[in-house]
Amino acid sequence: MYYICFMDRLITHIRKTINLDDSEAAIVSSYFEYETVKKKKHLVEEGQTVHKQYYILKGCLRIYTLNTKGNEQTLQFGIENWWIADYLGFLGQTPSNYFIQAVENSEVISIDKNSLDELLSQLPKLEKYFRLTFQKSLGAAQMRIKYLFTMTAEESYHHFNKNFPEFVQRVPQYMLATYLDFTPEFMSKIRAGKA
Amino acid sequence: MYYICFMDRLITHIRKTINLDDSEAAIVSSYFEYETVKKKKHLVEEGQTVHKQYYILKGCLRIYTLNTKGNEQTLQFGIENWWIADYLGFLGQTPSNYFIQAVENSEVISIDKNSLDELLSQLPKLEKYFRLTFQKSLGAAQMRIKYLFTMTAEESYHHFNKNFPEFVQRVPQYMLATYLDFTPEFMSKIRAGKA
Repeated sequence: MYYICFMDRLITHIRKTINLDDSEAAIVSSYFEYETVKKKKHLVEEGQTVHKQYYILKGCLRIYTLNTKGNEQTLQFGIENWWIADYLGFLGQTPSNYFIQAVENSEVISIDKNSLDELLSQLPKLEKYFRLTFQKSLGAAQMRIKYLFTMTAEESYHHFNKNFPEFVQRVPQYMLATYLDFTPEFMSKIRAGKA
Repeated sequence: MYYICFMDRLITHIRKTINLDDSEAAIVSSYFEYETVKKKKHLVEEGQTVHKQYYILKGCLRIYTLNTKGNEQTLQFGIENWWIADYLGFLGQTPSNYFIQAVENSEVISIDKNSLDELLSQLPKLEKYFRLTFQKSLGAAQMRIKYLFTMTAEESYHHFNKNFPEFVQRVPQYMLATYLDFTPEFMSKIRAGKA
């Protein structure tokens, strides 16, 4: 049995955590769908029922919401080999709390909740891979909350620049400003070394 | 085989997700330690190596940090049947990014990373319980980040009051203010219906 080539990245990623022979990889593969999503297009809009979890093969996506003034606030970015989803929406099959949008032309693979449940029943060894994925993501979300509370705008920018230089290159300035919670004007000043 | 009685709550909690017979429950039990922690005492201080994940049997705990002005900022509360930990610190066995403190006299059970790894090797069926626990907690952390970006202080308070009334009763006002990110003075006004 062979697995489909768009599954290469995910299979390699899973094999960093657990052993998976080729017939098991083929089973995993049979549960996923491949999608392309053009820059600025949405995979999910706020209010639509959440069906899927996404694994990013290529490109960059973000989760955002609108604040009371109608302005975008970016909650999270994701690039190659990251999972992205509204997890409460996914678990409850409820309306999405967020927009998920492509920042660049992107390729993803997706799995819906019933398929994930079935896959995990068929291959329970995958539970470990997902447990560790969510445990790490939860740790990262804890740090995001800490930084929102403790860093000044300038510190946030320098921290992000140092730890995630690839994002600063790939993401438009205005969008990074909505992630770091400061104005595009302040962002321009910082980048010009004037802040 | 029998499991130790302080394990009752956790065993019941696990059995909501997966089947666990009494001999398996006894195995789970053998990996946990029971601790009491007095109000205001810390289970972990920022900078100390993280060894453990905690499950709350009784009482209330919180995760907090200090901002640049030296003021406390509460990132998360936990009550009965909640897990609480610095997950990046736990996975990496690195210095804690946070303080974990008892808000009330509390009872917890704890497991260190090596023990959790061993337990999960011995009883792989537990992976599903932890996967779902972390997936839900990750979903909750995503919502926390959304609320920090989108709610006014007053909306935050009313939302918290409506969704988590037990906390509002149990947690001192000044501490709730450090969670909702507003001043104790504003909190007093809101509670007096003046804001």
